[in-house]
Amino acid sequence: MRIVVIGGVAGGMSAAAKARRTNKDAEIVVFEKGRFVSYGACGMPYFLSGEIESYEELIVRKPEDFEKAGIKVNLGWEAKEIDAKNFKVIVESREGKKEEVSFDSLVIATGASSRRLPIEGVDLKGVFTLKSLDDGIAIKNYISDKKVKRAAVIGAGFIGLELIDAFVRQGIEVVSIDIVPSPPPQFDDDMVDFVKEKADENKVITCWGSKVDRIEGGDSVEAVVVEGERFPVDMVVLSVGVSPNSEIAERAGIELSVASAIKVDERMQTSVEGIYAAGDCTHSYSVVTGKPIYLPLGSLANRHGRVAGTNAAGKNAVMHPVAGSSIVKFFDIGLARAGLTESEAKSEGFDVASVVIKAYDKAHYYPGAGKMKVKLVWDKASGRLLGAQLAGPYTGVKRIDVVASLLIKRATVSDLKSVDLAYAPPFSPVWDPLSIAANQAVKD
Amino acid sequence: MRIVVIGGVAGGMSAAAKARRTNKDAEIVVFEKGRFVSYGACGMPYFLSGEIESYEELIVRKPEDFEKAGIKVNLGWEAKEIDAKNFKVIVESREGKKEEVSFDSLVIATGASSRRLPIEGVDLKGVFTLKSLDDGIAIKNYISDKKVKRAAVIGAGFIGLELIDAFVRQGIEVVSIDIVPSPPPQFDDDMVDFVKEKADENKVITCWGSKVDRIEGGDSVEAVVVEGERFPVDMVVLSVGVSPNSEIAERAGIELSVASAIKVDERMQTSVEGIYAAGDCTHSYSVVTGKPIYLPLGSLANRHGRVAGTNAAGKNAVMHPVAGSSIVKFFDIGLARAGLTESEAKSEGFDVASVVIKAYDKAHYYPGAGKMKVKLVWDKASGRLLGAQLAGPYTGVKRIDVVASLLIKRATVSDLKSVDLAYAPPFSPVWDPLSIAANQAVKD
Repeated sequence: MRIVVIGGVAGGMSAAAKARRTNKDAEIVVFEKGRFVSYGACGMPYFLSGEIESYEELIVRKPEDFEKAGIKVNLGWEAKEIDAKNFKVIVESREGKKEEVSFDSLVIATGASSRRLPIEGVDLKGVFTLKSLDDGIAIKNYISDKKVKRAAVIGAGFIGLELIDAFVRQGIEVVSIDIVPSPPPQFDDDMVDFVKEKADENKVITCWGSKVDRIEGGDSVEAVVVEGERFPVDMVVLSVGVSPNSEIAERAGIELSVASAIKVDERMQTSVEGIYAAGDCTHSYSVVTGKPIYLPLGSLANRHGRVAGTNAAGKNAVMHPVAGSSIVKFFDIGLARAGLTESEAKSEGFDVASVVIKAYDKAHYYPGAGKMKVKLVWDKASGRLLGAQLAGPYTGVKRIDVVASLLIKRATVSDLKSVDLAYAPPFSPVWDPLSIAANQAVKD
Repeated sequence: MRIVVIGGVAGGMSAAAKARRTNKDAEIVVFEKGRFVSYGACGMPYFLSGEIESYEELIVRKPEDFEKAGIKVNLGWEAKEIDAKNFKVIVESREGKKEEVSFDSLVIATGASSRRLPIEGVDLKGVFTLKSLDDGIAIKNYISDKKVKRAAVIGAGFIGLELIDAFVRQGIEVVSIDIVPSPPPQFDDDMVDFVKEKADENKVITCWGSKVDRIEGGDSVEAVVVEGERFPVDMVVLSVGVSPNSEIAERAGIELSVASAIKVDERMQTSVEGIYAAGDCTHSYSVVTGKPIYLPLGSLANRHGRVAGTNAAGKNAVMHPVAGSSIVKFFDIGLARAGLTESEAKSEGFDVASVVIKAYDKAHYYPGAGKMKVKLVWDKASGRLLGAQLAGPYTGVKRIDVVASLLIKRATVSDLKSVDLAYAPPFSPVWDPLSIAANQAVKD
């Protein structure tokens, strides 16, 4: 039995490793078009910031490690076509050598590509996106080669915010541009005031609620023009989201789903039996709505990979619907969410109730205690918890996991109120901020 | 309508405040035998350590604040007897003045008293316990008056550990004594190796698995003798647990329960209708076993108080069974638990399965990442989660709340495995330590 995996980052290598543990006898072959496999892509901002010295620290397992486990890793080989009828992939090496490889089961883990904006100057030297480790290395090298002093970061979503933070730590002045007036767009407007505060505190020039006109430069980037205003910069990083690399699947007649991600069932199987997908090229199912949801997150890619790997190797595993938990650090604050925001819940047609509270993250008298915001969103009639958002001192926002856990159990806001969350002054006030919010939500 | 509350710390003042919000017209009268009301008793170790400068920072609301809200606070008045038939309390002032006060409903929040050991020298000057704010102030004064250089802390439970940490921060050499070989006793033996490590690192002399013979001294403490070995010390703090102050209730014919705590139903009502109890003088119900459980925790005292206050004021509220979440910081590590330990689960007759894993608390490459231990305990046949314990970098152990939440929902270890816990490198590895443990527990 031969299992082929296309793509060697989070989803692909998790699938390969799990397939190996599931089936000792199968031949497992990975094709990765890049130079690296199995790296923590989410760590790249900390490599750019200098908090991590070498990008090599981001590499979890090297090709040799996989080879030792009996997984054949082909670097620099790109899958060009899938023959979904005859169970074959056509792969091509960097040198243009083509080969046809047959498989008994296939895992597509082609990831996603950074979106680019259709603006003038987007192809100039010094305009980057950040998705692969190679992207990260290229940005780092450009900063040191060109002695970058000023950079524009277009997009202030999670990665955009991490990039701003990273560049400021490197002493680079940052111009942050986002079309949304109060980014990051993943949060309700009433949750993001800390973000603006921190950006200002760190002298970030914020052009939020503004559109980029063009990028200017001769040979390389010299300025970014935002609604008529020209900001001289040495570098531009576009961080405006990603699109799933699903074209190869589509060409093979495999169905797509939300956001053009490869459609999968709960076993991560595509519309073709024996062909699975994992990671940023595919989707998850929301535990709140039950619908497919495109969430290109490292945590989910790994979960997908385990399930796809198990099933590709002949056993049976299921990918549970997700809370969509996500979290980001921006200077010394953190933002986290799980489930739906209020605006998302409304678009989904829920009759929504919500509450926002502000409370200390630790006992008010404990050194370093800071205020955090908690927003809870629930279904008015049933009390069912639909989502939560947290913002505040970054050491406090991992408590979003409480909400994720309750969402998985389809809990109500009363259930949250009932939980005796752990208390000691260095960790929480006697009423945890989540409990304070739940007490506000459910008055008795 | 008159609501009388006996005791003005966590349980009592929560009850009084909640009764006020519930019933605008009732007369609410509090009797507190001490000098202070409404303080964060759990903050005292941080006052002793110097992390908090003044004990006044621990005071949440002053008597004046309560008076303004229409709650009469009588400081220095002790309740001596309850007449449960005629609904009266006899209270006595510090000067010996007695009064009889009738009530329509009563909340008993008499707290708990520190246990003392029946050993020689326990009444010497310089031997302390820590329960009330007055205790804390007395210890702090003794340290500065006597220029304490060396102290013995007897008992290495949660408060014992916090005291050791506090004294070391004050430059005091500490002898820690506990009858248990691997304290704190609230944890399974395989979870506490970090505690010994940190104690050693901070040059704490640990006499664990040892019994104190006696305390020696003339006028005041000079030494502690542990199994024949004499340790010269200037001060001794006994931290060997607490007993509920339930005698006044018992004398009134009110039933007691586990650990001699005042017996209550889910409305925090005692065996006498109209008389409620809250805080360390009473008990909770375990969400795991359904049985009464004595947990003298500040977080629960506040929860009790809210429920008792609502019901005493004529409305209806219920105290949910508890996960018994608790957490402690010891130098730079933290320990946390929820539900049952493995040994507790076995004594309860469960057919137990368990797993212990060690994993980074953050992405392995993120600065400051450290190893943490996770232990999960579940019912072998059903997979029902019975409890969890965490030990490791203190910034990571609040994730115990995930387990507390799942316990409240009677979740299985598979449910824990299903939760997509939030991931970004500063917060967690791509697989959260809890997920790693759950993956180990439920292999697929």
